[in-house]
Amino acid sequence: MKNNQPINGPVVETRLRVRYAETDQMGVVYYANYYIWMEVGRTAFCHERGFSYRDLELNHGGYLVVAESSCRYKAPARYDDEVIVRTSLQSVQRRTARFGYQIYRVDGLLLAEGETFHVLVDRAGRPTTFPVEHLEVLKGSVSA
Amino acid sequence: MKNNQPINGPVVETRLRVRYAETDQMGVVYYANYYIWMEVGRTAFCHERGFSYRDLELNHGGYLVVAESSCRYKAPARYDDEVIVRTSLQSVQRRTARFGYQIYRVDGLLLAEGETFHVLVDRAGRPTTFPVEHLEVLKGSVSA
Amino acid sequence: MKNNQPINGPVVETRLRVRYAETDQMGVVYYANYYIWMEVGRTAFCHERGFSYRDLELNHGGYLVVAESSCRYKAPARYDDEVIVRTSLQSVQRRTARFGYQIYRVDGLLLAEGETFHVLVDRAGRPTTFPVEHLEVLKGSVSA
Amino acid sequence: MKNNQPINGPVVETRLRVRYAETDQMGVVYYANYYIWMEVGRTAFCHERGFSYRDLELNHGGYLVVAESSCRYKAPARYDDEVIVRTSLQSVQRRTARFGYQIYRVDGLLLAEGETFHVLVDRAGRPTTFPVEHLEVLKGSVSA
Repeated sequence: MKNNQPINGPVVETRLRVRYAETDQMGVVYYANYYIWMEVGRTAFCHERGFSYRDLELNHGGYLVVAESSCRYKAPARYDDEVIVRTSLQSVQRRTARFGYQIYRVDGLLLAEGETFHVLVDRAGRPTTFPVEHLEVLKGSVSA
Repeated sequence: MKNNQPINGPVVETRLRVRYAETDQMGVVYYANYYIWMEVGRTAFCHERGFSYRDLELNHGGYLVVAESSCRYKAPARYDDEVIVRTSLQSVQRRTARFGYQIYRVDGLLLAEGETFHVLVDRAGRPTTFPVEHLEVLKGSVSA
Repeated sequence: MKNNQPINGPVVETRLRVRYAETDQMGVVYYANYYIWMEVGRTAFCHERGFSYRDLELNHGGYLVVAESSCRYKAPARYDDEVIVRTSLQSVQRRTARFGYQIYRVDGLLLAEGETFHVLVDRAGRPTTFPVEHLEVLKGSVSA
Repeated sequence: MKNNQPINGPVVETRLRVRYAETDQMGVVYYANYYIWMEVGRTAFCHERGFSYRDLELNHGGYLVVAESSCRYKAPARYDDEVIVRTSLQSVQRRTARFGYQIYRVDGLLLAEGETFHVLVDRAGRPTTFPVEHLEVLKGSVSA
């Protein structure tokens, strides 16, 4: 059980380098860009946990829209910094999922923490439920 | 006093048109872009209330960094939609400010609601306090 | 005919205000963002000339993809500057269109000039031709 | 001579994964984002060739502003695609530099080609020249 592995548990780390485009005139990363990094972390999480979001969209017409997002900024990230996004799945239900994120500079400085709450909808935008096989993969990836 | 004008009170409306760049492959506006719209609303709020953020940065070396942000998404915005951002200043202290936002489609559909909490720092990133004249302008603009 | 009006001819002006998000740590607008402004100009051009790009996509499955883009930067744009995008349609064929842009600061300073060359494709990404009614609207909007 | 090193020559490859944020409602990467990838390639090029752009900005007050940019789009990139940016320095003078880029999907499909032409300016935006040590590093990295 993943729950017995507190250290190497279902947290997926992904690494990125701050782009010039992501800075603003304050000389630090613009606040909205942390949400893009959360999405990068989310994509990496799904990849590593065997959940194909692309398959969900293409073959099941399921779209995991964002219903809520939030972020607390602790320290600024700067151009060319290496950044680590630690993504975990906090909960999953038949039609919703909640992800959590901790964003660090590579030397260990905590830059930001955030969450996103998602609702599954179909192509027409109506709430729907995860296909069974997708739901099982996700349930196996929830943090303890 | 603005507080006596509930209808034309210290809420500033700004209008924008959804850019193609702001959509994603789901066919709707990407979730991080609402935070950019909040910033557009914040800038318009400051303009209309006589608070020059540009002056704060250039002449006082004060930077209003974002410490927290959050958004609840109610309905998707689409390419070419006209959108109205209603911005209010929820509270202001000597070194912090909290803004609130309601984002509507021009026909009145509520698209999203959000908040940002800001801390004033100097060029070196240390917390500082608003210059007196800026603080007074802001205090006069807080929603009842 | 618009072609008889050299001064107020088929150039469409659209105005925007530089967003904080659009700046980078150099304190000026990041170079890729001028292409977003060109798209804003293109959308405004189509609106004003009676060409509904949204209709082309939704009802004809036609997508005007970008095949080439270029920009020469003359002077930097800064946060909160008011900017005017002057868009013209330089040429249009059965399956291609070329737009030109001049981007000014509101006081008349030329900031940048650019072009985009577009090819019409269908939903599957194959080259296609403009519906007759769209082509006629566009042909009537080409600069002399 | 670098020209004698065909394999480890002055082309630097950098790899990235397409972000959801980078797509638009056409289901492909929005055209302006290729310019951001060119900047990612440029940064990687400088890193690998021993040229610290961060040092140039911080310690010499030199800013390599973009004077021209262009891109030809050959095939669309899609969400989650792995992309390789091949960056080369086409020419460098005392105060200018020209970079070239080829952007491939990881399976070898050419997605786009582009160039950027840069002018070195000081903090006040006036043209200046590269510090000698930076210029030598760059000159040693020019493609044949």
